[in-house]
Amino acid sequence: MRIMGIDPGLQRTGYGVIDQIDTRRYRLVEGGVVGTESDWLLEQRLSAILEGIAEIIAEFQPDIAVVEKLYSKYRHPRTAILMGHARGAIYLAAARHSLPITAYPASQIKKSLTGNGRATKGQVAAMVTQLLGLDETPGPADVTDALALAICHARPGPQQGGHRELPDAVREALAREGRTVR
Amino acid sequence: MRIMGIDPGLQRTGYGVIDQIDTRRYRLVEGGVVGTESDWLLEQRLSAILEGIAEIIAEFQPDIAVVEKLYSKYRHPRTAILMGHARGAIYLAAARHSLPITAYPASQIKKSLTGNGRATKGQVAAMVTQLLGLDETPGPADVTDALALAICHARPGPQQGGHRELPDAVREALAREGRTVR
Repeated sequence: MRIMGIDPGLQRTGYGVIDQIDTRRYRLVEGGVVGTESDWLLEQRLSAILEGIAEIIAEFQPDIAVVEKLYSKYRHPRTAILMGHARGAIYLAAARHSLPITAYPASQIKKSLTGNGRATKGQVAAMVTQLLGLDETPGPADVTDALALAICHARPGPQQGGHRELPDAVREALAREGRTVR
Repeated sequence: MRIMGIDPGLQRTGYGVIDQIDTRRYRLVEGGVVGTESDWLLEQRLSAILEGIAEIIAEFQPDIAVVEKLYSKYRHPRTAILMGHARGAIYLAAARHSLPITAYPASQIKKSLTGNGRATKGQVAAMVTQLLGLDETPGPADVTDALALAICHARPGPQQGGHRELPDAVREALAREGRTVR
């Protein structure tokens, strides 16, 4: 299972790709940023983000992309909306390659990595470094944040699996087709 | 001069295309919405908006696209950020066709159409109807808003023209090339 975390931003969009070896072991595949310059036109910046991320997807062929869920409140709405433009470009890059994309709330990412939903950025970065067996925290922070997203998806936890329940009607229909149902 | 106004929204993106006949006369060319369903995946909705608007651009070949400038404050930040995703898709559709795209603040759109920067939606809609010589206000409101954007760009006002000033050095260089400079 190959997972790509993406932290969208108009100036710098961080990305990180990891391979999940088993439920508790991960391997760093790639990490970096797609950067744009502030004197580019907005459409040029968004195109650069879309094309840049689409290229990474094409090259590394992840099975799923992960972004952070939107908050309900933002301190700087205008900046957040511009981030929203970049986030839209990420979804469009994923759509171009039929790559499924999922989103986790910030608190869940923190909790999944550190056990604490209110962990600091530094604590999350330290866990990213440790879990991927790196010598030092990968900078810039956008890359670490993207890797944290990828790891969050790979970690065992309530965000995946959960209790599998099949309604009796489904179970019976499947049984009639000869499929064994746990 | 053909102008396309676009009012981006995840659920409904309104668009309106007008031809500018002269500085005070405009002709309606096309207006409509690109709609998406709330049970579609975000990436599907954004792709539908991008492809839908790109199609209109390809069909009607406007010279410029116009959107509303972002505010500094929003009452519903999460909704505004999702609008930002759609707005990003609009910029990407414009970029695909190398269509220049410009943005005006809401107050300027209102002032340009009605003379009052704090005009109501109804007053703006009435002016759109009148200036395009329509029998009734085009609904839904997203279309009227998009047409207001297009008209704002076409209207004489501080947003275009302004005082043309050429530095003496430029003026002299042009004169040396035999070009008459006003």
